[in-house]
Amino acid sequence: MDCIFCKIAAGEIPAEKVYEDDHVLAFHDINPQAPLHVVIIPRRHIATINDIGEADTDLMGRLLQAAKAIAAREGVAGDGYRLVVNVNRGGGQVVFHIHMHLMAKRPFGWPAG
Amino acid sequence: MDCIFCKIAAGEIPAEKVYEDDHVLAFHDINPQAPLHVVIIPRRHIATINDIGEADTDLMGRLLQAAKAIAAREGVAGDGYRLVVNVNRGGGQVVFHIHMHLMAKRPFGWPAG
Repeated sequence: MDCIFCKIAAGEIPAEKVYEDDHVLAFHDINPQAPLHVVIIPRRHIATINDIGEADTDLMGRLLQAAKAIAAREGVAGDGYRLVVNVNRGGGQVVFHIHMHLMAKRPFGWPAG
Repeated sequence: MDCIFCKIAAGEIPAEKVYEDDHVLAFHDINPQAPLHVVIIPRRHIATINDIGEADTDLMGRLLQAAKAIAAREGVAGDGYRLVVNVNRGGGQVVFHIHMHLMAKRPFGWPAG
């Protein structure tokens, strides 16, 4: 498996973890675009949102549950935050293991890129 | 209920629907920021991601399942798309009914706003 996020999930590559449960892991982005920039991933490898199956609905919901939990822990729930999932190259996806960006602690323009 | 997205879900305000099932509805953004810009909402009113309960995991996953389905239908799955959820004012949330933006058919910069 040559996926960097799978290696992080397996503990083979270090990451600054901010959240983990049986299904989801989150860590600080190594190239942060905001004072708080966390990457939330399913532990199981799924390349893109296009590749989720019918059985993955709960797992996808857990990404948003993790976002809520992380925002609360990091003290940004009230002020707000932005969640972004890029899909395929044209959406800005670089690592092909589903991940949700949580960015906070700065103003955000619209549109989102 | 004074929520514009609840009124759309109830059929009291018209919208250009692109997808619907028992739990989720999607329609074209009235102020599009990309050639394809769809708003995906749960039919049930939940103000923000901070307000989801333990029982809402499946519903949140259905937003991402709808995104996958819409991208396929609209022919943008391969080229890619960006999904964005703004949470509270600081995240750019304007309508306080959870919604996921699906934007496609143009280049996207990074960071996302």
